[in-house]
Amino acid sequence: MKELKERILKEGKNLGNGILKVDGFVNHQVDPALMDACGREFARRFQALGATKVLTAEISGIAPAVATALHLGLPVVYARKHKPITMPDQVLLTLAPSHTKGRTVELIVSPEFLSGGEKVLIIDDFLASGQTILGLVRLAEAAGAKVVGVGALIEKTFEGGREALQPLRIPIEALVRITAMENGTITFAD
Amino acid sequence: MKELKERILKEGKNLGNGILKVDGFVNHQVDPALMDACGREFARRFQALGATKVLTAEISGIAPAVATALHLGLPVVYARKHKPITMPDQVLLTLAPSHTKGRTVELIVSPEFLSGGEKVLIIDDFLASGQTILGLVRLAEAAGAKVVGVGALIEKTFEGGREALQPLRIPIEALVRITAMENGTITFAD
Repeated sequence: MKELKERILKEGKNLGNGILKVDGFVNHQVDPALMDACGREFARRFQALGATKVLTAEISGIAPAVATALHLGLPVVYARKHKPITMPDQVLLTLAPSHTKGRTVELIVSPEFLSGGEKVLIIDDFLASGQTILGLVRLAEAAGAKVVGVGALIEKTFEGGREALQPLRIPIEALVRITAMENGTITFAD
Repeated sequence: MKELKERILKEGKNLGNGILKVDGFVNHQVDPALMDACGREFARRFQALGATKVLTAEISGIAPAVATALHLGLPVVYARKHKPITMPDQVLLTLAPSHTKGRTVELIVSPEFLSGGEKVLIIDDFLASGQTILGLVRLAEAAGAKVVGVGALIEKTFEGGREALQPLRIPIEALVRITAMENGTITFAD
């Protein structure tokens, strides 16, 4: 997507080790109009899948997932990383290694909000190694739901996430694809 | 706000100890259309203040704050509770006691995204004791910014937050006001 790519070119920074700094418009400061445009674009690309729910992971997936869900007219669930006191004792829980955090995080969803028969669209800010998204897929499957698509604002193609998700045989859409981050540069797929 | 009040009446649960379960539409599963309507209403109430930025705290403040910022045409910053690797070494940091977590949490903002002269509108999901919001006020003041208003989806009037914020002498708006939560019931202000 042109707007997002231009914003990354203008404000994104390659901090090394595959870390892309986009915290001026995606994941600390957020540009709501840009997120709304991204949500509209995801809605357009995934409209035909007949999803019944959008699923993401806190924290930085929330803004793009809520925008997408708004444009699809669906509820959105964000997996929690710590179980809040409002959640029942019995939860859906999986572990996902986090590259940027250097540790394993828990992904927790209340079974109240993910049920058998649902068609789940996963939206996140990044598709990198795919480990967080695979964690969300496990949660959906544990609930008896079916994941019908995966969307990410930014894909880092060199971290293997798309290959890791390939066995799911579902549409995978990234609004911007980055193929290399070497010597402080950012190389786009197109 | 009628829509939010009706949703709390229909789906909210009083779990005791002042804990209101609204995780079916606010803070685990989110109803994006409801959040959008709440954001539009906040924008209407705060339009005249001339805010330059919306500020909230992760995690559950993000959805209402992004919706409000979209309708005001402003960027939004969410204070982080853990410093991500994309943030500079020098940050704005304060501690805020969390009633629902039973411990003190850090609130961290990068000085890149909060600067002197900014007019900050704080939006959060709950106004309870006001401690999180006072933490956000300290961060804004440390940056040399001025807080011009505070908005919360749901105020629990019996936890003293409004009184704690009164010395700021700024508009405080809650879309729904709950005056008591006794014996499993939820009592509204109007």
